[in-house]
Amino acid sequence: MSGTLPFVRGFEFSAVAAGIKKSGALDMGLIHCEASATSAAVFTQNLVRAAPVVVSEVRAKKGRCRAVLANSGNANACTGEDGVRDVETLTAAVARGIGDEPAGVLMASTGVIGERLPVDVMMRAVPELLLRRRADGAGDFARSIMTTDKFEKVAVAEGRVGRQDVRIVGCAKGAGMIAPNMATMLGFVWTDADVDNLFLREATAAATDATFNRIVVDGDTSTNDMVVVLASGRANGHGGSPLRESGRGGGAAFEELLRRVMMPLAKAIVKDGEGATHVVEIRVEGAASDKDARLIARRIAESPLVKTAFHGCDPNWGRLLAAAGRAGVPVRPDGMAIKVGGVAIVKRGVGLGKERESEAKAIMRGAEYVVEVDVGVGKGRAEVVTCDFSEEYVRINGSYRS
Amino acid sequence: MSGTLPFVRGFEFSAVAAGIKKSGALDMGLIHCEASATSAAVFTQNLVRAAPVVVSEVRAKKGRCRAVLANSGNANACTGEDGVRDVETLTAAVARGIGDEPAGVLMASTGVIGERLPVDVMMRAVPELLLRRRADGAGDFARSIMTTDKFEKVAVAEGRVGRQDVRIVGCAKGAGMIAPNMATMLGFVWTDADVDNLFLREATAAATDATFNRIVVDGDTSTNDMVVVLASGRANGHGGSPLRESGRGGGAAFEELLRRVMMPLAKAIVKDGEGATHVVEIRVEGAASDKDARLIARRIAESPLVKTAFHGCDPNWGRLLAAAGRAGVPVRPDGMAIKVGGVAIVKRGVGLGKERESEAKAIMRGAEYVVEVDVGVGKGRAEVVTCDFSEEYVRINGSYRS
Repeated sequence: MSGTLPFVRGFEFSAVAAGIKKSGALDMGLIHCEASATSAAVFTQNLVRAAPVVVSEVRAKKGRCRAVLANSGNANACTGEDGVRDVETLTAAVARGIGDEPAGVLMASTGVIGERLPVDVMMRAVPELLLRRRADGAGDFARSIMTTDKFEKVAVAEGRVGRQDVRIVGCAKGAGMIAPNMATMLGFVWTDADVDNLFLREATAAATDATFNRIVVDGDTSTNDMVVVLASGRANGHGGSPLRESGRGGGAAFEELLRRVMMPLAKAIVKDGEGATHVVEIRVEGAASDKDARLIARRIAESPLVKTAFHGCDPNWGRLLAAAGRAGVPVRPDGMAIKVGGVAIVKRGVGLGKERESEAKAIMRGAEYVVEVDVGVGKGRAEVVTCDFSEEYVRINGSYRS
Repeated sequence: MSGTLPFVRGFEFSAVAAGIKKSGALDMGLIHCEASATSAAVFTQNLVRAAPVVVSEVRAKKGRCRAVLANSGNANACTGEDGVRDVETLTAAVARGIGDEPAGVLMASTGVIGERLPVDVMMRAVPELLLRRRADGAGDFARSIMTTDKFEKVAVAEGRVGRQDVRIVGCAKGAGMIAPNMATMLGFVWTDADVDNLFLREATAAATDATFNRIVVDGDTSTNDMVVVLASGRANGHGGSPLRESGRGGGAAFEELLRRVMMPLAKAIVKDGEGATHVVEIRVEGAASDKDARLIARRIAESPLVKTAFHGCDPNWGRLLAAAGRAGVPVRPDGMAIKVGGVAIVKRGVGLGKERESEAKAIMRGAEYVVEVDVGVGKGRAEVVTCDFSEEYVRINGSYRS
């Protein structure tokens, strides 16, 4: 999917190359809600929070939004009060352009940490950004938030939700520094669904937890993560009531559509993990609880030794068992089992031989596969999606700033 | 320091190339205590424990030891009951050779996980191992436990401890997979001190916590880690009483000597971290407690983005702040300060400019330096030693088994 994203009623988009990036690539983007949209947002759990996170988190609380300003090339993180003022200046300029209050404008940034935004350069670009708004501009917006990303990440879902014919479109950015708990990752989702604000918050939190918070690239979490969901309500042409809860009037169908947009975005982030060549879904079962299973899955997904073994297409089950064993929750070493792409290579804690490993190795040469780990304790289960760890990752991150 | 390790009264050593490693390098080693030595041991906290750990942990409880058998090239981990029997068979052969019970023989293994030990090959090597015992064989022993290690790790400390003139010598093995909580790391320490068993346990646990548990190579912990301290008591020629507690009769001096042997061994492990080119001491202060400080220091020390920045000699303080912010304990973002090799680059959460960063960058080109992070909350402090993350690490671990 690329530039041909379907329209969603109530939204316009634009992007410009303001000059934040030396490369001349698109580096500022705007989502404009024609009328005030119902909104919900989720922010990084890192205690060190970038200025756009600090400002947007407060503004997002009221649940209504007129525009989202985004930039790449500079994260505006660790910039103190100056950084906060820069967000206020830029969002005020956008607000003036669309005839609203600054409080109706959110901002998201990604890029290098610790440098002031080039506010003058960006202020000069705001009029053009406002001028270029188009209903079919979403692809450009998706490209404007890329940093080391190799491809833009977009997803679409459509369906009948109660009495509404709903379309949901989203885009995301993220390459290195991705871990559960929202790591340098931006996600923007817009829909014409008519959704009550409280329910939109619940649905957004649940979908984020089930998708973006289940991916790992390098276990680091960022100062700038943000997921924003905007709902214009335009799908409700019949004057019916907005979606209010999961259990009634299409609420569950809406939640399902939201996950169907967010999950491919999350997987695309892993696929585009810096230097990644394999996407691996870690499915843990047999843990004492789902929570335990998730801790084990993450330990495996974040282990550099496991990730380098994935890179070498090596069914090194000893590293998988060792990672599971150090998750800090119960596992039964002599009850553990491992399958790679359905091929059993460990049973009752011991290997099943070289022949099985050869089969597994063949599967591991593929771009995407599933590793199942049963830890032999209870009924808890969880999935996490991760990628391999390559020399390229080190090269990218050893020289990102220079 | 290499082959010329000083003698310690009461101990003999040997090593052979039994053929576990295809390379023909030394792969079996023996420490023989001429008379039963007082002993203390610390084992991996991983729930998946190799057979030699399972067996040695039980035997170590009695606090007396006649011999330690070690091998490299095969970890005897995830080998089920067969693996345990193999340990029993091999240690029984050593016990017969020195005229003791198998329960007096500990075993330590390191190498690939999930394969049975080549017991026949190893049993054939036991007589030679027994025959070659020499008081000056410690250097060979140190080499026999190496796997991907580039150099042997040995250390010596001597001093007056109460009425005893004590010598402590140690060696260690460890390269990849090193993290706090005892990660694929073997440490052996022997001394002629006369030490009460309870006190030796306390001193060993404390010294391990202050040294081996403060290092990070890649955050993975292993199935096989073990630190063994053996005390022959031969330094007590005067019929005095053994060292019994920290507060009296030289106990504190003994603890200090023990740390003076273990700390250089721990640092050598980091220096020899797979692909490591820089050794970096992370000193955290200003945390709410020492425990919090340690969590923050570890988060920084384990962050792939921080470690790749170290590799690129990049004073990327944003990554340091972001890692501190996601440690799960309080930090004050606008009160944080960072120094690299004494050069302040961040104060009150914001950068101090490019000039300071250039100075820091010059320091980071060195092989060893200190990074100080003040998180601005309280008085808690902790140090952790880590290394950078290089392409070489990925190469080594992506192809270790093939």
